[in-house]
Amino acid sequence: MTTPSLSPSPLRERAEALYRALQDELVAGLEALDGGARFGRDAWTRPEGGGGVTRVLADGAVLEKAAVNVSAVWGPAPRALVEHLKLEAGAFFATGISMIFHPRNPHAPTFHANVRYFETDAGVAWVGGGCDLTPYYLYEDDVRHFHGVVRDACARHAVAEHAAWKAWCDRYFVNGHRGEARGVGGIFFDHVRGELGALLDFQADLGRSWLPAWAPLAERRKDTPFGPDEERWHLQRRGRYVEFNLLHDRGTRFGLDTRGRTESILVSMPPRARWDYDARPAPGSPEARLLDVLEGPPRDWV
Amino acid sequence: MTTPSLSPSPLRERAEALYRALQDELVAGLEALDGGARFGRDAWTRPEGGGGVTRVLADGAVLEKAAVNVSAVWGPAPRALVEHLKLEAGAFFATGISMIFHPRNPHAPTFHANVRYFETDAGVAWVGGGCDLTPYYLYEDDVRHFHGVVRDACARHAVAEHAAWKAWCDRYFVNGHRGEARGVGGIFFDHVRGELGALLDFQADLGRSWLPAWAPLAERRKDTPFGPDEERWHLQRRGRYVEFNLLHDRGTRFGLDTRGRTESILVSMPPRARWDYDARPAPGSPEARLLDVLEGPPRDWV
Repeated sequence: MTTPSLSPSPLRERAEALYRALQDELVAGLEALDGGARFGRDAWTRPEGGGGVTRVLADGAVLEKAAVNVSAVWGPAPRALVEHLKLEAGAFFATGISMIFHPRNPHAPTFHANVRYFETDAGVAWVGGGCDLTPYYLYEDDVRHFHGVVRDACARHAVAEHAAWKAWCDRYFVNGHRGEARGVGGIFFDHVRGELGALLDFQADLGRSWLPAWAPLAERRKDTPFGPDEERWHLQRRGRYVEFNLLHDRGTRFGLDTRGRTESILVSMPPRARWDYDARPAPGSPEARLLDVLEGPPRDWV
Repeated sequence: MTTPSLSPSPLRERAEALYRALQDELVAGLEALDGGARFGRDAWTRPEGGGGVTRVLADGAVLEKAAVNVSAVWGPAPRALVEHLKLEAGAFFATGISMIFHPRNPHAPTFHANVRYFETDAGVAWVGGGCDLTPYYLYEDDVRHFHGVVRDACARHAVAEHAAWKAWCDRYFVNGHRGEARGVGGIFFDHVRGELGALLDFQADLGRSWLPAWAPLAERRKDTPFGPDEERWHLQRRGRYVEFNLLHDRGTRFGLDTRGRTESILVSMPPRARWDYDARPAPGSPEARLLDVLEGPPRDWV
């Protein structure tokens, strides 16, 4: 791929190749996990420069919906981008991979992750990313496994700051209007400059830890029996996921404000959600136990 | 009710009494229409001053969810309010009634309306309000009936500017990120100063036109047969309703930003919604006919 305003950059090409490889690996891994449903493939182009590939699986046996998207876009920096980033930039290049896995079973958690690379023609470049877990029922062993795999990926790379990035994640994924966290966290990092080559190495390792972090939880919980009450709770909590993404998530709002591809941005929405007025779990119930964690201070799980 | 910083105002008391009376009338009318389900009643208070009554009906025969809320709040003007309104105000008083009716049948449209009264201790006062219709299938006679009743209510009052307020509604209820209107409009007005007594008379007349405008459409369509495909479309379109309310609606965001009561604000959410990646109706289908209208220029229905 070439861009009219930015000279070619080996890092940019490396990032884009990494994200495309991760997409293929994750799609293959998720199809194997689901055991039946297959991902569709939508390639799209952006009129101002670049494009992407959106891959979506719907109505699987394990996954009610999953999306793994790659994009690489460039061109004149939109006004919203310049204002948002407070940058003097004429042109930009951005590439990333983002994903969301919404399992069908309420006992299996939702997973969200992305890594991204950004540069401008003013010589600025950075990376960002992260991953986080949103359970509907609390299995502390599951949460510990997830955080352990992510911490171990960070520990293998001197450029990764696990403690700071875990805390950043805990601050970021919060439904302030509800006084509760979206989920049980993970890591979040953004605008990280420095040794970009080493940071891409870390992103590759992190990306390859996502299935090991999440898939065992899905395997463990996919056949847990549940009834209409658990399903109602699941859909109510997915409503909170919608609230976070549309009210608070900077990436979603920024993507829509800069006229990104709406269907690729909002593919993060859960397949089904519900809202019941002032629904509260019974004290002492498993649902209330989760809420206690989400309303309480962030925990150190590992 | 008394407020520490604003001296009593006959208009304020009249507005509040009007909204409370409208709430009782609408609740009674909707219960009669539904024929089974009853509204709950939640009275709440706001720590900084005032409170409200939230009335919600769930899982009715005709109405899957309906809410009719009244609030009257006052006190020191929050910073977000002062910045939003660009006002020099130390204290404010605001009262209003807002409502949403989500029918169960996809052939019956969603209805949303409110009227409100606002004043500050700096001697500024205004009214706002409106009503709008969101169908899932297009019945042109239904849309004409709705717009006709609203236009007639405006025509009875010299202070009401129907043409301008219809155009304002068409501009306001737009999902810009989708390139489509939320529904087929109605009227919208805000920050209207002037003859406040006459404007409250108009609000009373408008409020009493809401059931005559919407209820006949619900009666006409409540037993229209539908299958899973129509239901899926219904829930997808309700997803668009969620997107508008959380991404674009100023009242929702402003209410959450000023720490309003979250459950009373987000009671506007549909009971159920869904998101399917890049779902598009078949060309020539009834679903596509609706979308053509929502994507096209606003129409003069009457």
